[in-house]
Amino acid sequence: MASSNGGFHSLASCLVLFLLLWTFAEGGKLLVIPIDGSHWLSMRPVVEQLRHRGHEIVVLAPEINLRIGLSGYYTMKTYSVSYTKEFVEAEFKKMGYRSFTPQPFSAKLSNLANISSLFLDSCKRLLGNKELIESLGESKFDAVFMDPFFPCGQIVAEHLSLPSVYLLRGLPCSLDFHATLCPHPPSYIPRFFTRYTDRMRFLQRVHNLLASLSSSLLCSFLYAPYNSVIKEFLQREATLLELLSHASIWLMKYDFVFEYPRPLMPNMVLIGGISCTQKKALSQVLWRYTGKVPPNMPKNIKLVKWLPQNDLLAHPKARAFITHGGSHGIYEGICNAVPMVLMPLFGDQMDNAKRIESRGAGLTLNILEMTTQDISTALKAVINDKKYKENIKRLSDLHLDRPIHPMDLAVHWVEFVMRHKGAPHLRPAAHDLNWIQYHSLDVIAFLMAVVLLFLFISLKCCLFCCRR
Amino acid sequence: MASSNGGFHSLASCLVLFLLLWTFAEGGKLLVIPIDGSHWLSMRPVVEQLRHRGHEIVVLAPEINLRIGLSGYYTMKTYSVSYTKEFVEAEFKKMGYRSFTPQPFSAKLSNLANISSLFLDSCKRLLGNKELIESLGESKFDAVFMDPFFPCGQIVAEHLSLPSVYLLRGLPCSLDFHATLCPHPPSYIPRFFTRYTDRMRFLQRVHNLLASLSSSLLCSFLYAPYNSVIKEFLQREATLLELLSHASIWLMKYDFVFEYPRPLMPNMVLIGGISCTQKKALSQVLWRYTGKVPPNMPKNIKLVKWLPQNDLLAHPKARAFITHGGSHGIYEGICNAVPMVLMPLFGDQMDNAKRIESRGAGLTLNILEMTTQDISTALKAVINDKKYKENIKRLSDLHLDRPIHPMDLAVHWVEFVMRHKGAPHLRPAAHDLNWIQYHSLDVIAFLMAVVLLFLFISLKCCLFCCRR
Repeated sequence: MASSNGGFHSLASCLVLFLLLWTFAEGGKLLVIPIDGSHWLSMRPVVEQLRHRGHEIVVLAPEINLRIGLSGYYTMKTYSVSYTKEFVEAEFKKMGYRSFTPQPFSAKLSNLANISSLFLDSCKRLLGNKELIESLGESKFDAVFMDPFFPCGQIVAEHLSLPSVYLLRGLPCSLDFHATLCPHPPSYIPRFFTRYTDRMRFLQRVHNLLASLSSSLLCSFLYAPYNSVIKEFLQREATLLELLSHASIWLMKYDFVFEYPRPLMPNMVLIGGISCTQKKALSQVLWRYTGKVPPNMPKNIKLVKWLPQNDLLAHPKARAFITHGGSHGIYEGICNAVPMVLMPLFGDQMDNAKRIESRGAGLTLNILEMTTQDISTALKAVINDKKYKENIKRLSDLHLDRPIHPMDLAVHWVEFVMRHKGAPHLRPAAHDLNWIQYHSLDVIAFLMAVVLLFLFISLKCCLFCCRR
Repeated sequence: MASSNGGFHSLASCLVLFLLLWTFAEGGKLLVIPIDGSHWLSMRPVVEQLRHRGHEIVVLAPEINLRIGLSGYYTMKTYSVSYTKEFVEAEFKKMGYRSFTPQPFSAKLSNLANISSLFLDSCKRLLGNKELIESLGESKFDAVFMDPFFPCGQIVAEHLSLPSVYLLRGLPCSLDFHATLCPHPPSYIPRFFTRYTDRMRFLQRVHNLLASLSSSLLCSFLYAPYNSVIKEFLQREATLLELLSHASIWLMKYDFVFEYPRPLMPNMVLIGGISCTQKKALSQVLWRYTGKVPPNMPKNIKLVKWLPQNDLLAHPKARAFITHGGSHGIYEGICNAVPMVLMPLFGDQMDNAKRIESRGAGLTLNILEMTTQDISTALKAVINDKKYKENIKRLSDLHLDRPIHPMDLAVHWVEFVMRHKGAPHLRPAAHDLNWIQYHSLDVIAFLMAVVLLFLFISLKCCLFCCRR
């Protein structure tokens, strides 16, 4: 009886939340500025959910893109860019090729510079499209929901004087943590591309600190051109970092069964695993493959052009998951508790693989050096050694045991920003301090000066007395 | 139609959560170690809710206490202490008296030392009660839910090898932030008792840094005796701070409409406003008063011995709230959007009052110096100047617009720790580093040595070449 009382309390507060959501779902206007490619895959379901809740949605994208298509969920507004679809596809292939061939640092740098100049060019085209910008201004949006990987989105938000909500896994050179003034000590927070865990030996910590400093330098170099774009378009002096710091809410695709525990700021909302849902059951063994069918293919493998990876992972007979280690796939592996064999290709995938391996929930193979024997050994290990299944099961249980679904959290905070025109109560006063003030260096210098002055006067007095 | 789709998604996920909570509510065993006084007021409803959900609850308390009584919700286990109820009541009165009379620092220190020795004595009595400790061990609890203001609770948890969940507003000398390794820069996070806001002038920042250092020193002095208690009882060397760092979840009575935005750690869960609920309607003007009725009392004031403060504040005719500035009352004022006239007495109340005043939602009076004219002026201001009502309404709207009720959040995380025997995935690796490593001082020293060595060798080479 006591138990049913408690149950009804939960149900009652649940229904209140439902009615509250229902009441607020009267419909506002939202501008969405996404990023093409896999990034759009986690943003799209949130956009669709917001549309379901009655909001009018306009998606702003370059006319050349791979995945952001027309849809009944939103109106699309496009702007012309200087590159072709073939060029983008070729760049993606190049990126893949580069991952499989050892590259000198200069080549990596030029690759980064290429991607960066692509974004910059796209940004200039967007801001230069006066007709489009004017029509956006006339649309009277309530907020902008964007992927900050395309940093131009915030310039548009500033121009339209609109609050913004970000959806992201992370930004280059910890730009997300710099912009939010979120502490991230290099002593236990491994930087991306280092492939370290949160437990580093001395020399690893040395490297991590150097990686932190050099990536900061690199980024200030890469993002420098935006400062002149900002000045020209917004008619004021501001850095891109300063603009990014104006975001109201950062929806982070983070969960600590996967990421290493670290400090957070009040305007960061964790929604890791948002796109992982358990849906339909499958009954056959399948293999997604779009190339030529090999002649010696075993009979128990069925080739298809596309398959619902998450439903496949949810099948009770899914014993292991061979994945390149993208964060989407990893969260699907975690939520379905399938141990992984990871073959990272590029970007954050090496670090992702390391995180899963460090938790004993998978094994990583080097795709440049591995043999068929290696794959076989790794697969047999994650299937037959019980510890991999136990570890992924434990991570999965922790991940799924949450008070509210990440999708509801994401929708709540986008609507919160729409309703209240931002979330200024979550912005720390640290943004009003410069670097010296933030670290109290001026205060420390002052106190040291006082102490030295006191010592000096005491010494003088002593000497004076002694002479007397 | 689109909107109803979205609504049903929310309702569906709501029902899933409800069923999940229902399934898990099979009932575990929870040991509760509370603190007497107003602290118990916010812990009791959570304990009652956990009982409603089918858990068996044992409350451990000293036999002498003011508020923790017998109840149908829990079994009570008590231990004898060396003081009497009269002594505790007298100490409370003394604390009140001291608040109204200017005190030198030494008196404040002795007051603190008194309270601290009271807790220490109580702790020794508890740990020395072998029969009680043995019976706790036999009870096979799933977790300990405690108020860490009585730091002995964690020693009991360690002895029983049980994970712990804390409920708190804050601990003396930022002990909560030291124990969780949560960054708290003194440049924008005002220390308690300084009465500063998060925007400090230079000299205020100097004072805040000094306050931070001195309170750390003071606390290491106050808590030093626990180290020997720990050694004796747990038979190992450990500091109290180390023990506190083992807490799985910190339920913080925090909300950023009231507190200043600051970094947080993954195992901190914000449940500010947990005890504020909107209940019944009232229709009369009332005044709680237990003393002698004054002869000249106006006819529109009705005296009663006790009244439901929250229901009273919820009345639409409640125009202003005169409060001493305890955090419970302030949250009730916020959730009912009633502007406040604050007359802080002791403890954190001066800082609380400052927070509300800095948000333009109330006025603070100095109870030692105020005149009837001051009260009248302040009351008229918060009632007639629209900005106070507007500000408290804005704070109230922000505070109440949340994706899940703080009570459900608190219950979820207590049960999470009971189900999973802790939450080790939320513990940062920083706990394995010492102070020098955490701040990368060894790495910086190493890099400086390398640079100096390089400069030295270069210089030597140059000199050698020049000589040739």
